[in-house]
Amino acid sequence: MLVEGVHFDRGRLDDHAIGARAAGANLSDIAAMAARPLCLVAGFGLPEGFGGAEQLAAGLASYGVPVAGGDLSRAPVLTLSVTAIGRAERPLLRSGGRPGDRLVVTGRLGAQAVSGYTLPVRPRLAEGLELAAIATAMIDVSDGIAGDVRRLAAACGCGATVWLDRLPLADGATVEQAATGGEDFELLAAVSPGAQLPDWVTEVGVLSEGAAVELVDAAGTARELHGWDHFR
Amino acid sequence: MLVEGVHFDRGRLDDHAIGARAAGANLSDIAAMAARPLCLVAGFGLPEGFGGAEQLAAGLASYGVPVAGGDLSRAPVLTLSVTAIGRAERPLLRSGGRPGDRLVVTGRLGAQAVSGYTLPVRPRLAEGLELAAIATAMIDVSDGIAGDVRRLAAACGCGATVWLDRLPLADGATVEQAATGGEDFELLAAVSPGAQLPDWVTEVGVLSEGAAVELVDAAGTARELHGWDHFR
Repeated sequence: MLVEGVHFDRGRLDDHAIGARAAGANLSDIAAMAARPLCLVAGFGLPEGFGGAEQLAAGLASYGVPVAGGDLSRAPVLTLSVTAIGRAERPLLRSGGRPGDRLVVTGRLGAQAVSGYTLPVRPRLAEGLELAAIATAMIDVSDGIAGDVRRLAAACGCGATVWLDRLPLADGATVEQAATGGEDFELLAAVSPGAQLPDWVTEVGVLSEGAAVELVDAAGTARELHGWDHFR
Repeated sequence: MLVEGVHFDRGRLDDHAIGARAAGANLSDIAAMAARPLCLVAGFGLPEGFGGAEQLAAGLASYGVPVAGGDLSRAPVLTLSVTAIGRAERPLLRSGGRPGDRLVVTGRLGAQAVSGYTLPVRPRLAEGLELAAIATAMIDVSDGIAGDVRRLAAACGCGATVWLDRLPLADGATVEQAATGGEDFELLAAVSPGAQLPDWVTEVGVLSEGAAVELVDAAGTARELHGWDHFR
């Protein structure tokens, strides 16, 4: 669910971009399960006087995934709830990683934070399907790797170490933006120790025994960094 | 999407009942397509200080349909968006009716309006499957038959007549409540003229040539009645 004032600001994104963002964020979850999208279903909550429903719908459809249905309602602030439905022969879960698995990410991190969360979302659908061949667990980086690595590790029953100096930084991004900015919608995967890595991922850490998750700098010092929390 | 202050009032329904209502309304859509539910996906938008998420989730699961996933977000008012996923060998659409088809409804109408919209929702899943054998088009009565018959007729490219004196009234319900009160979640089907009707439906009208939809009283006078409109 994307809620005006919580997830987006109508001053920064036009209605088409808001619809696209809602679709892209959900398609990113499909990518993270190594699935192929079949369709989208959307509920829009529209505030009094809002005239952009057609633009929202056009943005929603902009990834070429059919919009199979949905509903409209009155709401106090613009609210979009999108469900992406996909199919996977063998869905890749968050929970299959084991100690010793390497942690890799696609693309670069922090670009959305640098842009003020206005860049188009590019769900990593093709990359998700390809990573399925070597990944033991996968998640999309929606709240910043500092948060999402904790979710992945917890689901695997593991701890983890992330090397902050190895994070692939977007142009102009600080390590903090890359680790905690969120909404980059890259994929974070655990891969078997012996797997051959494609050249479009970056190795950023490792799963470990125990439950401790540490983000360490180049000097080996753990940093207190946390992903974005809607409820914070 | 169910929005506090638009679709429900937290003074009248507890959190379990709100969750159940969100599930029931969506399962009613599955029933209207003569489908079998597979799972539910839910997004909850929770206002500051709200402590009832577990009760919402328990209500959501109360029909025995698995809850496959979802997300939580902050929102200015309690907001529930549920997607029901079902499977039908041959989905029954709103659009298959033809002039001369009889209009039938399940159950009785107006009970929710009489109760102040606090009665549990009972989606007509079994009835939907059974009606599929004789129905040419079907819709669930969510906004009152006065509104939903217009949607059905328009989708069929037909007009329609509804005989208000034949509406099956819930105990204590007026004809107005039965026609316009909404949220009864009964099924309204068009059935072939020669079909044998089950004894648990009531014949309330007929599809006609043209585009005019009339709700007529016992004297044959058309009444100006309209279904509930969230945007009115």
